[in-house]
Amino acid sequence: MSSDPAALLRDPRVVWVEDVLRFRDTDKNGHINNSVFSVLCESGRVNLFGLKFDPLLRPGTFYVIARLVIDFRAELHYPGRVNTATWLNRVGRSSMGLKQAIVSEAGVAAESEAVCVLMDGATRRPTPLPDEMRRVAEEMVRPDAA
Amino acid sequence: MSSDPAALLRDPRVVWVEDVLRFRDTDKNGHINNSVFSVLCESGRVNLFGLKFDPLLRPGTFYVIARLVIDFRAELHYPGRVNTATWLNRVGRSSMGLKQAIVSEAGVAAESEAVCVLMDGATRRPTPLPDEMRRVAEEMVRPDAA
Amino acid sequence: MSSDPAALLRDPRVVWVEDVLRFRDTDKNGHINNSVFSVLCESGRVNLFGLKFDPLLRPGTFYVIARLVIDFRAELHYPGRVNTATWLNRVGRSSMGLKQAIVSEAGVAAESEAVCVLMDGATRRPTPLPDEMRRVAEEMVRPDAA
Amino acid sequence: MSSDPAALLRDPRVVWVEDVLRFRDTDKNGHINNSVFSVLCESGRVNLFGLKFDPLLRPGTFYVIARLVIDFRAELHYPGRVNTATWLNRVGRSSMGLKQAIVSEAGVAAESEAVCVLMDGATRRPTPLPDEMRRVAEEMVRPDAA
Repeated sequence: MSSDPAALLRDPRVVWVEDVLRFRDTDKNGHINNSVFSVLCESGRVNLFGLKFDPLLRPGTFYVIARLVIDFRAELHYPGRVNTATWLNRVGRSSMGLKQAIVSEAGVAAESEAVCVLMDGATRRPTPLPDEMRRVAEEMVRPDAA
Repeated sequence: MSSDPAALLRDPRVVWVEDVLRFRDTDKNGHINNSVFSVLCESGRVNLFGLKFDPLLRPGTFYVIARLVIDFRAELHYPGRVNTATWLNRVGRSSMGLKQAIVSEAGVAAESEAVCVLMDGATRRPTPLPDEMRRVAEEMVRPDAA
Repeated sequence: MSSDPAALLRDPRVVWVEDVLRFRDTDKNGHINNSVFSVLCESGRVNLFGLKFDPLLRPGTFYVIARLVIDFRAELHYPGRVNTATWLNRVGRSSMGLKQAIVSEAGVAAESEAVCVLMDGATRRPTPLPDEMRRVAEEMVRPDAA
Repeated sequence: MSSDPAALLRDPRVVWVEDVLRFRDTDKNGHINNSVFSVLCESGRVNLFGLKFDPLLRPGTFYVIARLVIDFRAELHYPGRVNTATWLNRVGRSSMGLKQAIVSEAGVAAESEAVCVLMDGATRRPTPLPDEMRRVAEEMVRPDAA
């Protein structure tokens, strides 16, 4: 993975969300705790889903995260703000692949990949993406660099 | 406020819950962050309500916390375990007063008071405690020392 | 306690900090968890101390929070932003009294009081505020309404 | 990845840590929030390092996490306890590979992999594991199943 913030900023398929770091995000190592990176990734995912996909959900279905990968590139420090870029890199039958970059003033602090699966609340099993959701998702895909 | 852990341990009106401190609970000051104390208090309150009062709730009603007071007595450090004592010190028409003590190996780390109010989900207004809940609550009251 | 956001905004003795609510701040009741209010209060306190008092600290001294009171006025919901107002209402020999208001678009979500004590790292006992810190603090005091 | 809790329990190379789930760990989806899984993984890692490696650290060196992968297998619910198994699967020149399994009463809730790197505080660059740390680490390695 390699994320160029400038390229991400120019790309309309990338959705950004801003977060403010908190004193509570620090740990006894003096920097922002690594688990906060997964909180920031979640902010980005929930924001993208809220904007693009939640209105297209069938009743009784919901997303779960099946896999999360975080590559830590740099420490984050309090106080500060970060912007998290989120985009799709893959659309499956009942799942989507997401990529993310957490960017501070100092550059890329982390890159992340996630797999989110659409679940049927009644069967607790994966269920296919609705057609309109798939159409919207496929238009948003930003393929991994060849 | 002044809590004697030995007296609390002997008192059947006091409900205890154990928590394990986590590295994530630390902050850049090197100790357990003060906001974690309110998390531990919440563990104690939710545990007491789950044991004693949730089965007596009318449908469509729920508790909210109206006031929380924490007196910090000592630092907590990772790693470690704490036990939180929770008891009632007052039963009102639609509210209960709770007291708590967070106890580590080293002694009392914090004392706390809270006011919880029973709400009607439809009106979003306080609603009287059901008779049976009031009866159970009044039997549990441990009055403040005179 | 009763906080008028408009009056707080006009008052130069009040220091504001903005926070962005996170999905992680929610709990199974569907709203922002009550313990997050103490995280937001901490953001406000640390910001005020960082701006005004940290440069005036004697080496080997640090603040602790001795008491925190939160009066919950309204629920907070994700997504959203809040602004936290922090001011001093009292300066003691080795302590300061702080007041806070957490304000969302919908109005005041909580009001808070805290007592912070300056500690000597060597003796682990309270130590008097340095003269210059006391002078700055006294000029910032916004007395409670008579 | 595929973790058999019974096999992990029998294996002396696996280090276990217990955590108590908290109401604060829930989110508005009603279950334990996914970011809490990274907090539990951290508890396991810090516990293993504290037991085995911290006493062998050269002054001025410290670990960072370079990569974290979590495969979510099942939801966790409050209240409950989890036990997290942590072991080494690889020892490099200046890094270690760790694997983890988060286990609840209901079975394996998540499996995880992490890469931790030993850093030199002065150069902020990776630094080789001390000989004794490498020796201890190599004896602990539990290779991935062929």
